[in-house]
Amino acid sequence: MNGLDPADLPLERKAALLTGGDFWSTAADEEAGLKPVVLSDGPHGIRRQADTSDHLGINPSLPATCFPPAVAVGSSWDRQVAAQVATAVAREARALGADVVLGPGVNIKRTPLCGRNFEYYSEDPHLSGVLGSAYVRALQAEGVGASVKHFAVNNQETERMRISADVDERTLREIYLSAFERVVTEASPATVMCSYNKINGVYASENHWLLTEVLREEWGFTGLVVSDWGAVSDRVAALAAGTDLEMPGASSSVQEVVDAVRSGRLPEAVVDAAARRGAALGRYARRSNRNPVLSEEEIEAGHAVARQVAAECAVLLRNEHAVLPIARTSRVAVIGEFAVLPSYQGGGSSHINPTLLDTALNTIRSHAEGQVDYAPGYYRDGSGAPAQLRAEAVEIAAAADVAVVFAGIVRESEGFDREHIDLPADQVELIQAVAAAAPRTVVVLSNGGVVSLEGWHDEVDAILEGWLLGQAGGAALADLLYGVVNPSGHLAETIPLRLQDTPAYLNFPGEQGHVRYGEGVMVGYRHYVTAERDVRYPFGHGLSYTTFTTTDLTVTATGPDTAQLNVTVTNTGPRTGKHVVQVYVATTAGPVRRPARELRAFEKVELSPGETRTITLDLDRRAFAYWDVLEGRWVVAPGDYTVQIGHSVTEIVAEQAVTLAGESLVAELSMQSTVGDWFDHPVVGAQFTELLHSVMGAPASEQSDHVEDGMKMARGMTLHQFAGFLPAALPADRLDELIKMSRATS
Amino acid sequence: MNGLDPADLPLERKAALLTGGDFWSTAADEEAGLKPVVLSDGPHGIRRQADTSDHLGINPSLPATCFPPAVAVGSSWDRQVAAQVATAVAREARALGADVVLGPGVNIKRTPLCGRNFEYYSEDPHLSGVLGSAYVRALQAEGVGASVKHFAVNNQETERMRISADVDERTLREIYLSAFERVVTEASPATVMCSYNKINGVYASENHWLLTEVLREEWGFTGLVVSDWGAVSDRVAALAAGTDLEMPGASSSVQEVVDAVRSGRLPEAVVDAAARRGAALGRYARRSNRNPVLSEEEIEAGHAVARQVAAECAVLLRNEHAVLPIARTSRVAVIGEFAVLPSYQGGGSSHINPTLLDTALNTIRSHAEGQVDYAPGYYRDGSGAPAQLRAEAVEIAAAADVAVVFAGIVRESEGFDREHIDLPADQVELIQAVAAAAPRTVVVLSNGGVVSLEGWHDEVDAILEGWLLGQAGGAALADLLYGVVNPSGHLAETIPLRLQDTPAYLNFPGEQGHVRYGEGVMVGYRHYVTAERDVRYPFGHGLSYTTFTTTDLTVTATGPDTAQLNVTVTNTGPRTGKHVVQVYVATTAGPVRRPARELRAFEKVELSPGETRTITLDLDRRAFAYWDVLEGRWVVAPGDYTVQIGHSVTEIVAEQAVTLAGESLVAELSMQSTVGDWFDHPVVGAQFTELLHSVMGAPASEQSDHVEDGMKMARGMTLHQFAGFLPAALPADRLDELIKMSRATS
Repeated sequence: MNGLDPADLPLERKAALLTGGDFWSTAADEEAGLKPVVLSDGPHGIRRQADTSDHLGINPSLPATCFPPAVAVGSSWDRQVAAQVATAVAREARALGADVVLGPGVNIKRTPLCGRNFEYYSEDPHLSGVLGSAYVRALQAEGVGASVKHFAVNNQETERMRISADVDERTLREIYLSAFERVVTEASPATVMCSYNKINGVYASENHWLLTEVLREEWGFTGLVVSDWGAVSDRVAALAAGTDLEMPGASSSVQEVVDAVRSGRLPEAVVDAAARRGAALGRYARRSNRNPVLSEEEIEAGHAVARQVAAECAVLLRNEHAVLPIARTSRVAVIGEFAVLPSYQGGGSSHINPTLLDTALNTIRSHAEGQVDYAPGYYRDGSGAPAQLRAEAVEIAAAADVAVVFAGIVRESEGFDREHIDLPADQVELIQAVAAAAPRTVVVLSNGGVVSLEGWHDEVDAILEGWLLGQAGGAALADLLYGVVNPSGHLAETIPLRLQDTPAYLNFPGEQGHVRYGEGVMVGYRHYVTAERDVRYPFGHGLSYTTFTTTDLTVTATGPDTAQLNVTVTNTGPRTGKHVVQVYVATTAGPVRRPARELRAFEKVELSPGETRTITLDLDRRAFAYWDVLEGRWVVAPGDYTVQIGHSVTEIVAEQAVTLAGESLVAELSMQSTVGDWFDHPVVGAQFTELLHSVMGAPASEQSDHVEDGMKMARGMTLHQFAGFLPAALPADRLDELIKMSRATS
Repeated sequence: MNGLDPADLPLERKAALLTGGDFWSTAADEEAGLKPVVLSDGPHGIRRQADTSDHLGINPSLPATCFPPAVAVGSSWDRQVAAQVATAVAREARALGADVVLGPGVNIKRTPLCGRNFEYYSEDPHLSGVLGSAYVRALQAEGVGASVKHFAVNNQETERMRISADVDERTLREIYLSAFERVVTEASPATVMCSYNKINGVYASENHWLLTEVLREEWGFTGLVVSDWGAVSDRVAALAAGTDLEMPGASSSVQEVVDAVRSGRLPEAVVDAAARRGAALGRYARRSNRNPVLSEEEIEAGHAVARQVAAECAVLLRNEHAVLPIARTSRVAVIGEFAVLPSYQGGGSSHINPTLLDTALNTIRSHAEGQVDYAPGYYRDGSGAPAQLRAEAVEIAAAADVAVVFAGIVRESEGFDREHIDLPADQVELIQAVAAAAPRTVVVLSNGGVVSLEGWHDEVDAILEGWLLGQAGGAALADLLYGVVNPSGHLAETIPLRLQDTPAYLNFPGEQGHVRYGEGVMVGYRHYVTAERDVRYPFGHGLSYTTFTTTDLTVTATGPDTAQLNVTVTNTGPRTGKHVVQVYVATTAGPVRRPARELRAFEKVELSPGETRTITLDLDRRAFAYWDVLEGRWVVAPGDYTVQIGHSVTEIVAEQAVTLAGESLVAELSMQSTVGDWFDHPVVGAQFTELLHSVMGAPASEQSDHVEDGMKMARGMTLHQFAGFLPAALPADRLDELIKMSRATS
């Protein structure tokens, strides 16, 4: 920028900075020294298009490492994993000439049906925010800008371009904005990408409350807001609301902005501020000096990272009779075409053209010392005769010590939602047939969205949930099956028993332009634990080849609304492994319905056999706070809080109560306050009771149930109403006095 | 009125007509010939206060027959029963000097916790509306005015004076307003009583949309809107919105209205209209010529009706081994203090001072020829030693042929909600102990709100759900137990397995001034059948001492959006009995999520053993319609509808499909319509596809999954967005042409 203030440019040139220069670049202004910034789809790899551009994942992109998508990284519960992916992606971005990577996605998995869940971390905002924040910090530490997306409340693909997500503010704050808030305040992403949808009737791109009041004024965001590709409906309205940069943008947009300023409809200061932010993004611009292609070394380095992190992400759901890890000498039947043609990423804008592709079968063969047979069992494309394929699979399964069935979802993509959570019927039949024939059966799943395990779960010995693990996922799964790596992933989302049990089931995907977020804050595990509903596997669940114990939990308040906890974890099993300390807080304090417990901190630690470590974690005020809609801010209510350590959200292994002073919100009384409010007021209550007795007479020592019910009823009435029912007037001067007293204390 | 137009009165006198003359009367204007109209709490009896007035049920009222409350009448599924109660109530109103009875209550049972559920009919708006309508017609046929209440969306007692029920319009129309609409349009109630609460942030009393646009302009209501007692917060705002009469009202209100007119804030025409309605209500005014006390004959007549209708209302939930009816010669152990001190009504404004009170024990003794023992088992007031009481009960149970345990809820009232749905723990233990000791055990329940049957259900042979049955309920229960009357009640609300399963569980009772109706239209059975959730007993369930079959269902469309059904029912058992033909409609037609099925018609018929009858029922357009929020009206979508006959909502015994032409809503296209909308348009679609191919090139005959996914994604984009991604421009003139064509067909 050479010290130039873009606001000093002529209006047309300023306005031109606010619309894409081409499909993937910001507009340059060479004369002003403003270089174009190249943006690239991501975020689990670089989708850099050299030729025909699109944002749908249709046209090819340059080869790049396909790292595990967010669904997998979420299950790692490991900041390091998120950071490792980001660092590696940043390096490839540099190599491929991309300045800003369009990610991470930190939307909340509201329903397992969302077609884009594989691009999101979790159903929990704390986990999503912490991982997203780690990603952004690591990416930007390499000089590549991030674009946290899709801001906000973009939790479905159905009608995503125009649906209004109708959500109350507490739910927005506690669930749907919370991860964004953490990323913005902790990691200062270069850009925030606004989503396509509407929020409470207003397009995200035109939502001044969201993009300016919350994002900038409350959270202090100083970066640039970029539209999702094509998300701008009215350019001038969007700019006024806070959408600085329209991508890819139409030339007509520039003229619209100019006209709006000229006609006085849009303050020029808005254009100036956006142009400055656009110019400031230029610090990420780096003209690539080389061919946008990865070197052999870069490819190998990327792939090694991809394999290592993939193994941190898979979740061992079940392991009866310690069937896993597989002994190297075992005779193994590998079944399912996914073992040779893996599902490892989803479709759409995050679709990567991978540099390499590992298959599980190859790596199993390299680990195994016994015989390894393979049968496809089914074909991804649905071809073949199911009965025949199944018979071949059963034959090798029966002859093996252990059968490993690779199953999962063939196609998932951005742009449309799923219609169910079932595995393909032929795969379910295959699993059942193999389980009936094999001495031991292991199922390895590859799926971006949760799948139901019903109908076959109890028949198999082990289940390894691999999600989508990127291009090295096949090798990583083999490493886990053979114990080369000890599984350490934990569920970042609940596996329900039935789709019908999921909290948004009856409110998804909405109708007639609106989707009601009727479940409020009770999303994901918050719903199941609060409504005490059974699930197949709870949030946080994940097995290891070793065992861990949790002891010596202490919790100390460190202030009126903060606490610190110490807890000791020990590896009590035979192998080195990683354990996730999951910290939940449970409370009924305050005036709002709290979920039965909420994840408020976590830490993944590696422990050798017999090793013990004491973990200290700080719980900040947000760990205890709720969003108070009357106050319009976060409040920690005075009261008791139980800090719980869980091996999952339903398996609490230690808990300690802590009482917090919090913040007493003493209501100001009025004639519209209820009689109950008056009775219960900490300062005025006693005097009010006395006043009332002076009018009504003191209560009889023996009251009938009838009168007691009447008084219970009266508590719900406003004082105005109640006074109308009294035998004599309440003295107005005395009431005024009490109202003033209540005001003084509030 | 003597032909006088009240609008011609001086402003002060007109205004004075809009506020209560005293606690229970409208204001008189003797000079203008306007007599006071006396209103009385109800509606399952007259709560006429002679002395100290209150609207809380605290102070005594004149003796009157306590008929079965609405919870019981709802379970009768019988218009006749609702009408019989109303006729009898009207006669007592006349005798006791009441001109208008404050009822019926047709609010929907959104949650079993609502403390006032005993005053409402059902969780279903059709059943509520039909019974409410029958009540109003019968009441008014006797010259007594009705006041349908509480308008509207008053589904909880917690914070009832100020909570805002936040509900979307489809849910309002299909669920919460629907019963009111039926009563208003079919029965022309003299008055509608507005509720205390807010709806979407606006007090019902100040809700112009509700009281004027919907009630008067859409439904054609010509009667008077009266406030619930003390429901007016701002008199002028309430009057402007449509609350004609404030009760009981303060003298200051009259002056406020006068001042508002004088200052121009309130059009005098509003006062004129309300005053005319107030004067018109005068047609119900009748100065009583006698002492307000019922004669012996009136008391006996009332009691006889109370006993007869009560027996129509109880629901036989379970009857294993045909333990019921009890043989007269059986030795019976009657257990539970409810057998001598029954729960037969709730507390609050509907609390009646009964003229007589039957007990089950007395009537059982009169029916029985064998020995009848009695043990209290527990005391209502919680006194006594539970173990000792239980031991006494077990002793007589063990000696009997059959033990009958009377259990239920001791206290329920208007004014506060319940906190759980469990029976008292000592009663549960009593039932378990008796069931273990007795050869056969029958449980008779008395409860205004649903109670859980878990923990003991499977241990007993029969369960008779008596709800609250009014002053003759004890005798009616004995009549049913001995088969003097054959049970014919059916559940008007679901009995869930757990409170946690109920649809509003996580959204009740709201917080910080708002309660989110997050379950939308999926209230009651609509939730359970659509989410396929198990319940203890479904809506519509009810056994008889005889059996019925349903055959020969035929359904014929009688127009584009109406149908007629014929169905044959036969009494295949040994006794005369009443059967309820329950008609449900199931469809997935239209753009909104439909409940799996909805009650759309019903008819109760009495059949002698072997008797067969063919029932013909018309299904009007509302039986198939949904509320379309975009059109702002009821729409019947073209498509397939399945008409189902059920013995309950989950036990469908016959079904027939019918295809309705309905009403095709063809959308007008624009650049903001999605590509999917364009493709699918019935008129323009084909030409659009052609146009697109001319720009993109025709699709390859073999498309990859990848491209197919891309096109699936593209369907969700607006044409505006999609056009931006195309290699060449879509010709604007041709698009305009297509848009015009779409407009012409919409």
